[in-house]
Amino acid sequence: MKKKYLQPLLDGEISSSYSMTEPQGGSDPTQFQCRAEEDGDQFVINGEKWFSSSARYASFLITMTVTDPDAAPHQRMTMFVIPTDTPGVNIVRNVGVGSEAPGEGTHAYIRYENARVSKSNMLGPRGQAFAVSQTRLGGGRIHHAMRTIGQIKMAFDMMCERALSRQTKGELLADKQMVQEKIADSWIEMEQFRLLVLRTAWRIDQYNDYLKVRKDIAAIKALMPKVYHDIISRCIQVHGSLGVSNELPLSGMLLGSYVMGIADGPTEVHKVTVARQVLRDYEGTDQLFPDYTLPNRKAEAIAEFGEQIEREIENW
Amino acid sequence: MKKKYLQPLLDGEISSSYSMTEPQGGSDPTQFQCRAEEDGDQFVINGEKWFSSSARYASFLITMTVTDPDAAPHQRMTMFVIPTDTPGVNIVRNVGVGSEAPGEGTHAYIRYENARVSKSNMLGPRGQAFAVSQTRLGGGRIHHAMRTIGQIKMAFDMMCERALSRQTKGELLADKQMVQEKIADSWIEMEQFRLLVLRTAWRIDQYNDYLKVRKDIAAIKALMPKVYHDIISRCIQVHGSLGVSNELPLSGMLLGSYVMGIADGPTEVHKVTVARQVLRDYEGTDQLFPDYTLPNRKAEAIAEFGEQIEREIENW
Amino acid sequence: MKKKYLQPLLDGEISSSYSMTEPQGGSDPTQFQCRAEEDGDQFVINGEKWFSSSARYASFLITMTVTDPDAAPHQRMTMFVIPTDTPGVNIVRNVGVGSEAPGEGTHAYIRYENARVSKSNMLGPRGQAFAVSQTRLGGGRIHHAMRTIGQIKMAFDMMCERALSRQTKGELLADKQMVQEKIADSWIEMEQFRLLVLRTAWRIDQYNDYLKVRKDIAAIKALMPKVYHDIISRCIQVHGSLGVSNELPLSGMLLGSYVMGIADGPTEVHKVTVARQVLRDYEGTDQLFPDYTLPNRKAEAIAEFGEQIEREIENW
Amino acid sequence: MKKKYLQPLLDGEISSSYSMTEPQGGSDPTQFQCRAEEDGDQFVINGEKWFSSSARYASFLITMTVTDPDAAPHQRMTMFVIPTDTPGVNIVRNVGVGSEAPGEGTHAYIRYENARVSKSNMLGPRGQAFAVSQTRLGGGRIHHAMRTIGQIKMAFDMMCERALSRQTKGELLADKQMVQEKIADSWIEMEQFRLLVLRTAWRIDQYNDYLKVRKDIAAIKALMPKVYHDIISRCIQVHGSLGVSNELPLSGMLLGSYVMGIADGPTEVHKVTVARQVLRDYEGTDQLFPDYTLPNRKAEAIAEFGEQIEREIENW
Ligand SMILES: Cc1cc2nc3c(=O)[nH]c(=O)nc-3n(C[C@H](O)[C@H](O)[C@H](O)COP(=O)(O)OP(=O)(O)OC[C@H]3O[C@@H](n4cnc5c(N)ncnc54)[C@H](O)[C@@H]3O)c2cc1C
Ligand SMILES: Cc1cc2nc3c(=O)[nH]c(=O)nc-3n(C[C@H](O)[C@H](O)[C@H](O)COP(=O)(O)OP(=O)(O)OC[C@H]3O[C@@H](n4cnc5c(N)ncnc54)[C@H](O)[C@@H]3O)c2cc1C
Ligand SMILES: Cc1cc2nc3c(=O)[nH]c(=O)nc-3n(C[C@H](O)[C@H](O)[C@H](O)COP(=O)(O)OP(=O)(O)OC[C@H]3O[C@@H](n4cnc5c(N)ncnc54)[C@H](O)[C@@H]3O)c2cc1C
Ligand SMILES: Cc1cc2nc3c(=O)[nH]c(=O)nc-3n(C[C@H](O)[C@H](O)[C@H](O)COP(=O)(O)OP(=O)(O)OC[C@H]3O[C@@H](n4cnc5c(N)ncnc54)[C@H](O)[C@@H]3O)c2cc1C
Repeated sequence: MKKKYLQPLLDGEISSSYSMTEPQGGSDPTQFQCRAEEDGDQFVINGEKWFSSSARYASFLITMTVTDPDAAPHQRMTMFVIPTDTPGVNIVRNVGVGSEAPGEGTHAYIRYENARVSKSNMLGPRGQAFAVSQTRLGGGRIHHAMRTIGQIKMAFDMMCERALSRQTKGELLADKQMVQEKIADSWIEMEQFRLLVLRTAWRIDQYNDYLKVRKDIAAIKALMPKVYHDIISRCIQVHGSLGVSNELPLSGMLLGSYVMGIADGPTEVHKVTVARQVLRDYEGTDQLFPDYTLPNRKAEAIAEFGEQIEREIENW
Repeated sequence: MKKKYLQPLLDGEISSSYSMTEPQGGSDPTQFQCRAEEDGDQFVINGEKWFSSSARYASFLITMTVTDPDAAPHQRMTMFVIPTDTPGVNIVRNVGVGSEAPGEGTHAYIRYENARVSKSNMLGPRGQAFAVSQTRLGGGRIHHAMRTIGQIKMAFDMMCERALSRQTKGELLADKQMVQEKIADSWIEMEQFRLLVLRTAWRIDQYNDYLKVRKDIAAIKALMPKVYHDIISRCIQVHGSLGVSNELPLSGMLLGSYVMGIADGPTEVHKVTVARQVLRDYEGTDQLFPDYTLPNRKAEAIAEFGEQIEREIENW
Repeated sequence: MKKKYLQPLLDGEISSSYSMTEPQGGSDPTQFQCRAEEDGDQFVINGEKWFSSSARYASFLITMTVTDPDAAPHQRMTMFVIPTDTPGVNIVRNVGVGSEAPGEGTHAYIRYENARVSKSNMLGPRGQAFAVSQTRLGGGRIHHAMRTIGQIKMAFDMMCERALSRQTKGELLADKQMVQEKIADSWIEMEQFRLLVLRTAWRIDQYNDYLKVRKDIAAIKALMPKVYHDIISRCIQVHGSLGVSNELPLSGMLLGSYVMGIADGPTEVHKVTVARQVLRDYEGTDQLFPDYTLPNRKAEAIAEFGEQIEREIENW
Repeated sequence: MKKKYLQPLLDGEISSSYSMTEPQGGSDPTQFQCRAEEDGDQFVINGEKWFSSSARYASFLITMTVTDPDAAPHQRMTMFVIPTDTPGVNIVRNVGVGSEAPGEGTHAYIRYENARVSKSNMLGPRGQAFAVSQTRLGGGRIHHAMRTIGQIKMAFDMMCERALSRQTKGELLADKQMVQEKIADSWIEMEQFRLLVLRTAWRIDQYNDYLKVRKDIAAIKALMPKVYHDIISRCIQVHGSLGVSNELPLSGMLLGSYVMGIADGPTEVHKVTVARQVLRDYEGTDQLFPDYTLPNRKAEAIAEFGEQIEREIENW
C-alpha cells in the first residue's frame, strides 16, 4: 500500500482526500454511520461523507467507517484507503466555501454506494480509526497555527504600511488613536500567539507524547481563530474599501479565520478540552468553605502561630 | 433634468451610480481632488473616482467635483449628473468585493479625462455638494440599518432552527451552554438594536430636522456593523461547515457587515460624531476637583445644612 | 401576620431580611437543605443560610425551608416569617462585600438551631416557596435594572464633564479618539439598555402575566451587569487616579456591577433562560439539510415555478 | 545623600515616597507646575502633588519639580530628595482607593509651601528628572507585570478548585460549558501573558538598553490591566457571593487591575507608544495603490516573468 499510494503522494504525482465528516455531524465522531461490512476478502462501504476536501482531484480517499458497531464507541471505526475511481464512490456535489459558484467548490459531498475495497486497504488496525485520525489531527493543528501566524504577519505588515501612507483630516492614519489602538492590540496578540505556538512546538519535541501536549494543542487550536479573525478584521477596516475589495487577499483570510474555528473540530470542543486538561491538576474540596477563605486562613494561622503571637504581645 | 434622468430612474428603466469616493481617500471628503472647470456653457471634468457602485450598468453618474478650490472646505464642491456615455468617462477597471473574479466586480474605478458636461447638469447649487450628499447619506444610513435588522433576523432564525435540529455528544446543540449563550446574546443585541433604530426613525419623523438626529443616526451607523458582524459570526459557527459553505448566504452577510463599517463613512468617524454630539450637552469645569467629588460634596452640604446638622446633634 | 409584620414594615418602623441562599449553593434552589419539621402547632427550623442581607438590623427573616423533602423538587419548600430574636436564630458572622472590615458586613451567615416558629407564620401555602420567591424576584430584577440605569447615567455625566475639563498633550481628553470611543460606546450601550428595560416594563404592564415576560426579564437581568460594568469601567479610566480613589463613588459601583451578575441568580442561569424561552418559538427539522440551504431552496423553486420558468425561457 | 537616605532605606529602617503626579494631570508630565526656585544654597519648593503613595509613613519624598521653566519640555524638571518633616511640606489629606474611609488612605495630596531644601538634595543632574524617572518606571513596569502574574495564578487556582467543589443542577460547576470557557480562556490568557513578560525580561537582559525594549515594556504595561481584570472577573463570578465577599481577596485584586491601567501611565498612553514603536519599522508609500494589491503584484510578475510565461505557453 505504501508503494502504491504513499510514494506517488510524496512524489507529488497524485493527491489524496480525507473523508471523515458526515452530513449529520462532524464535531462528534461517535455519531458517524458510514458502514464498512466484511464480505469475504473485501469490505463493502455504504454511507455519506461531507466536506471531503479536494476529493474531486484526489486519487484516493482516506475514509473512516464503522466496522464494529457493537464495540465501545472509540473502537468502532476503521480507516480505509479507497481509490476514487472505485465503483460506488459517487460525488453528490462539490460544495464550496464563501461565495464560490454552486458546484465549483472543492469539498465533496460523497455517497458511498456498495463501494468495494480490499481488506489490505485498511489503514492502521481494525477498530483503531480514532487513534489513526488523532495522530494526523494533532500535527495538523499546530501546522495550521504556524501557517496562520504567517498570514497574520503579512496582513499586519500591510496595515502598518497603509497607516503610514494614508492621510485623513490633516493627519496620517498612523496618528489617529483609533488606528494606533488597532496596531498596538494586533502586535500584542500576534506576539503572544507566536510565543504560545512556539512553546507548544517545543513541548511536542520535548515530550514526544501526545497526551502530555493535548492541553497545549487544544489551546492554540481554540485561540487561533480569534487571533486570526481579530487581526484580519482590523487590517480590513484600516484599508477601507480596498480592504473588502478583490484586490487584496484580506476577505479570503477573514473567511479562513472562521474555517479555522470549525475544521479539525470546532472551538467549543477545544475549549472544553483545555478546561478538562487544566482541571486534572486540581482537586475539589468537601469543605463548605475552601481553605483559602479569610476566616479559614485566620483559623489556620492562629492554630499554628497562636501561642507565639500571644507571647509577642505580652513582651511588647 | 428631472424629466430626463429622474423619471426613468423612478420608472425603473435606467439606473444611476454615485461617484464620490476617490482613490486617495474616502473618509475625508475635503481631500477630494476631481476637478470641474468652467468652460463657457460647460464644465470640464478631470480626476479619478473609486468604488462607484454599479457604474458599469448605470446611465448616469452623480459625481462630486471641486469647482471652487479656493472656497472654504465645505463650499468647494459641486455635484453633477454625468451621462456614462460622455466621452472621457473611462472605467479603469471594475473592482469587486470579497473573492469576486478580477474585472467582474461592480464597483468602478473611473477616470474622468476632459469629460464635458453642460452647466444645467449641476445637481443642487454650486459649492453645495456637501449639503446635497448629506441629505442622501442620512436617509441611506437608517435604511441600511433597517435592512440589516432583516438580515440579522433571518440568520438568527436559521441559528435557532439548527440548534434544535443537530445532536452532538448526546444532546441537541440547543442544550449546550456555549450555544445557548450565543442565542441569548444574539437575541439581546438584536432586540436592543431594533429598538434604537425604531427610536431613531421616530425622532426623524418627530423633528424633521437632520441636525437634531445627527447623534442618533451616527450611533446606529456606528453600532450596525458590530451587531451585524457578531450575530452572523455566531450563526456561522453554530452551522459549522455548512455555515461557511456556499449553500448558505452567511459568509456573504459576514462580508456585508464589514462593508457596513466602511461604506457611507467608517465606524471611527461615526463614533467621533456621536461623542462630539453627546459632549455638546455638557460643560467642563475650571476647578481642580469637580463638584461631584466627595470632599466637595461634603463641603457643599456643610455650607448649606451645617448649622442645622449641629442643632440636630445638640438636641440628640 | 400582616398587622404584626407588614404594617410596621410599610411604615418604615422595622426592616426585614430575605433568607434563602445557603452556603452550599444559591444558584440552584433545589439544593437547599434548611429543614422545617412540624411539631404540633409549630415548625422547628434547622440549617444554615448565607448572605441574608441586613439580617443584623432586621426584625424578622423571610426564610425558605424544606418542609416536604419527598415532594417534587419545586413543591418541597415553604416560606416562613421568623422573628430575628427567636431563640436558635444565630448569626455565625456578618459577612461583608469588597474590602469591608471582617465582621462589619451586613450579609449574615445564619445558623438556625432548633428555632421554633408557629404554623401561622407560614408565608404563602405549604410547599409553595418557589412560587412565592419568583413573585418577589421578577419585580426585583426590573427594579434593579432601573436603578442601574440611574447609576450609569450619573457616572456617564461625570465622564463627560471630566473629558471636557482635563487637558493632556495639548488637547482636552474630549479630543482624544480613545476617549471619544469610550463616550460613544457608553452612550450607545446606555440608550439601548434603557430602551430594552422600558419595553420590558411596558410588556409587564401589558400582559400582567409573568410567564409572558420571563424572556424579557431574564434578558435585562443578564445584560445589566455587563452594561453597568463596561460603562463604569470607562468612567473610572477616564478619571485616572481620581476614578479609583475614595473621593468618587465609582469603585463601589464597579463592585455593584459584579453583585448584579450574581445576586438574584447568576448571569449564566439567566442566559440559559433567555435561550430556552427564545427556542420555544422554533422547531427543529429531521431533514439532513435544512430547508433554507441553497440546493433545497432551488429545488423548491423549481418544483413550484419550474414550468413557468421554462416557458419564459422558451418565449425569450 | 546615599548614606543618609539610601542606606537606611535598604536596611528597611525607613521608607520613601515618590511625589510626581499633580492634581491637574498625571499622564502628561510636561504639564507639571510644582516649582523649585534657586535661593542661594537652597531651592524653595512651591506647588501641589497628588497620590504620593505612603507619604504619610515616609521619611523622605522624591519630588519632581520645575527648575528651568524656559528650557525644552523634557529638560525643565529636576528631582529632589525632600525630608517629610521639612517645614512647608503639608499633607492636605490622605486620599484612599476604593472604599477606604475618608482620610484613612495612604496616597497623600501634598501641598509644598515654601519648603526649603539644600542643593545637595538634588537627585540626578539638574533638568534631568525625566531621565531619572524613566529609569525607575521601566523597571517598575515589568516588576508590576511579574507580581500580576503571581496574583492571577493564585486566583486561577482558586477558580479551578471551586469549579471542582461546587454542584449545581446535578453537575459540578466544572462540567458547565460556561464555566469551562472561563477556565480555558483564563489559562490561555495567563500563559500568553507569562510568555510575553518572560521574553521582555529576557530582552531587557540581552540588550541592556532601554530604547530597544520600549515597545516590549509598553506592550506588557498595556496588556497587564486587561489580563488581570478579565481573569479576576471570571474568578469572582465563579465564586458567586463568596467572590464579592470580604472573605476572599478577589475584589481587592479587581480594583488592583484598574490601578494597573492608570498608575505608571494610563493604558492609552502605552498603546500609543507600542503603535509608534512598531511603526518605526515600516515605511509608507507615495503610490496611490500599495505594491501589495493584486493589480500591482500582477503587473510586477508580468514585468519580471512575462517573457518566460509567454515562452512556456508557446511550448505547451
Ligand atoms: C474548509 C473546510 C475543510 C474541511 N475539510 C475536511 C476534510 O477534508 N475532510 C473531512 O472529513 N472533513 C472536513 N471538514 C469538516 C470538518 O471536520 C467539520 O466541519 C468539523 O468537524 C465540524 O463538524 P460540522 O461541520 O458537522 O459541525 P457540527 O458538528 O454540526 O457543529 C456545528 C457547531 O455546533 C457547535 N458545537 C459542536 N459541538 C459542540 C459542543 N460539544 N459543545 C458546544 N458546541 C458545539 C459549534 O458551534 C460547531 O461549530 C472541513 C471543514 C471545512 C470548513
Ligand atoms: C461595497 C462598497 C460600496 C461603495 N459604494 C460607493 C459608491 O457607490 N459611491 C462612492 O462614491 N463610494 C462608494 N464606496 C466608497 C465608500 O464611500 C468609502 O469606502 C468610504 O467613504 C471610506 O473611504 P475609503 O475606502 O477611501 O477609506 P479611507 O478613507 O482610506 O479610510 C480607511 C480607514 O481608515 C480609518 N479612518 C479613516 N478616517 C478616520 C478617522 N477620522 N479617525 C480614525 N480612523 C479613520 C478607518 O479605519 C477607515 O476604515 C463604497 C464602498 C464599499 C465598501
Ligand atoms: C450583595 C449580595 C446580596 C445578597 N442578598 C441576599 C439576600 O438578602 N438573601 C439571600 O437569600 N441571598 C442573598 N444573596 C445571595 C444570592 O442570592 C446568591 O449569591 C446567588 O443566588 C448565587 O448563589 P451563590 O452565591 O451560592 O453562587 P453559586 O450558586 O455557587 O454560583 C457560583 C457561580 O457558578 C456559576 N454557575 C452557577 N450556576 C450555573 C449554571 N447553571 N450554569 C453555569 N454556571 C453556573 C456562576 O458563575 C455563578 O456565579 C446576595 C448576594 C449578594 C452578592
Ligand atoms: C494606586 C495609585 C498609586 C499611585 N502612586 C503614585 C505615587 O506614588 N507617586 C506619584 O507621583 N503618582 C502616583 N500615582 C499617580 C499616577 O502616576 C497617575 O494616576 C497617572 O500618571 C495618571 O495620571 P492621572 O491620574 O492624573 O490621570 P489623567 O492624566 O487625568 O488621565 C486620566 C485618563 O485620561 C485618559 N488619557 C490620558 N492621557 C491620554 C492620552 N494621551 N490619550 C488618550 N487618553 C488619555 C486615560 O483614560 C487616563 O486614565 C498613583 C496612582 C494610583 C492609582
